[in-house]
Amino acid sequence: MQQYRYKITIEYLGTGLAGWQRQANGLSIQQILEEAIYCLTKTNTIVIAAGRTDAGVHALGQVAHFDLTNYRDPHQIMRSLNHFMRPHSVAIIDCQNVTSDFHARFSAIKRHYIYKIVNRPGQVILDAERAWWIRHKLNISAMQQGVSYLLGQHDFTSFRAKHCQAQSPIKTLSKLDIIKCDQEQINFYLSAPSFLHHMVRNIVGSLVLVGLEKWQPENIKAVLDSKKREAAGSTAPAKGLYFIKVDY
Amino acid sequence: MQQYRYKITIEYLGTGLAGWQRQANGLSIQQILEEAIYCLTKTNTIVIAAGRTDAGVHALGQVAHFDLTNYRDPHQIMRSLNHFMRPHSVAIIDCQNVTSDFHARFSAIKRHYIYKIVNRPGQVILDAERAWWIRHKLNISAMQQGVSYLLGQHDFTSFRAKHCQAQSPIKTLSKLDIIKCDQEQINFYLSAPSFLHHMVRNIVGSLVLVGLEKWQPENIKAVLDSKKREAAGSTAPAKGLYFIKVDY
Repeated sequence: MQQYRYKITIEYLGTGLAGWQRQANGLSIQQILEEAIYCLTKTNTIVIAAGRTDAGVHALGQVAHFDLTNYRDPHQIMRSLNHFMRPHSVAIIDCQNVTSDFHARFSAIKRHYIYKIVNRPGQVILDAERAWWIRHKLNISAMQQGVSYLLGQHDFTSFRAKHCQAQSPIKTLSKLDIIKCDQEQINFYLSAPSFLHHMVRNIVGSLVLVGLEKWQPENIKAVLDSKKREAAGSTAPAKGLYFIKVDY
Repeated sequence: MQQYRYKITIEYLGTGLAGWQRQANGLSIQQILEEAIYCLTKTNTIVIAAGRTDAGVHALGQVAHFDLTNYRDPHQIMRSLNHFMRPHSVAIIDCQNVTSDFHARFSAIKRHYIYKIVNRPGQVILDAERAWWIRHKLNISAMQQGVSYLLGQHDFTSFRAKHCQAQSPIKTLSKLDIIKCDQEQINFYLSAPSFLHHMVRNIVGSLVLVGLEKWQPENIKAVLDSKKREAAGSTAPAKGLYFIKVDY
């Protein structure tokens, strides 16, 4: 049976959602999309994403694919699915018909995340669910020194969630830039071919300990070398994390 | 009776709120603050703001003042009021004890706003209530040409709401920069000693007609010269507007 594959780029606000993957309890982005496709096609369709973001994590450019048995105009698919998803904070921002060898997860060659921190004494309102609020001043150059130990290929066991399903803990962190965007906002830009479960949030959680000067930058190397999750800092809150882009 | 004056800087998400000023119907930021002060002091207190923002307009740095009959530590005031306001998307981010000649409205020498547009075909999710989504590509340099007619002192009757209470329609627009922040976001930075009611949103509404190439940049001059509200474009949505800062 002929099938037509579609690649979609998705924006979502993760607040109140159960993350990408279908869950028995809680509404996931995958379920919202699959139900919208059912409304359009009356066919059960599985949607496969580049990255299975956790509950509360946002996306500006998540990528996914699915197959339809009838050809439909990509722009019409986007409009229709966005119509059906309207009550939810999820929308398709691009839709393309692609060849069947495209796979949102396995064809991905690099994934890009941003982690946002608002660093100021005053309570955060506009970004309450969109950034990690840290009251005490972070030492950015100390965090940047800590980063130097993490770039490149390493065994990231110390920054890996207990229930991570990846076969190997060895990953290659291609980029980790810490940029002070304005007086208050600090963005972490992370890129890698792939990440372990919670890897971004665990790295940010440890670097923040350096930023708060509870740790020295060299502690990051010691934590990495220990290959023990308990050696690293706690997991940074989901609400500061954005899945930005996938390279294919 | 001795009184102690406090200057507060306030951040709020205007979504779902009735704007700054107390209303018979709808919850205003003024009411939220005054009720929080009542919880703290058991005294009815009036809070006076630098700018009376409309329903749906946000603030990152609204300034207001109020008087208390007992001295309280400014930091404690901030913490207590933020505690009482917790259910609402309003917080005090700075509080200072000031002399009684300080007046949030009348001492202000310049007010600063940002208007945010997301300019892309794809539906906007993260900024749905925080920016004006415009699908069709805006011509930024045409809008910038339009701006040239607005800078400086003019009779802004054409950009003034019908129910504006200002005594004179003559205002001095000190700054209007249009900056493309990234691929999609266009920010308008506006500064003036004071603005007429709806002046920022009416200016943005007209400049967007230039950006969409429905108008020529020169139309802005014709609209200004006409001194008729109906000559100008429609009022840009409240959700894109942010009250940023006040100079004293």
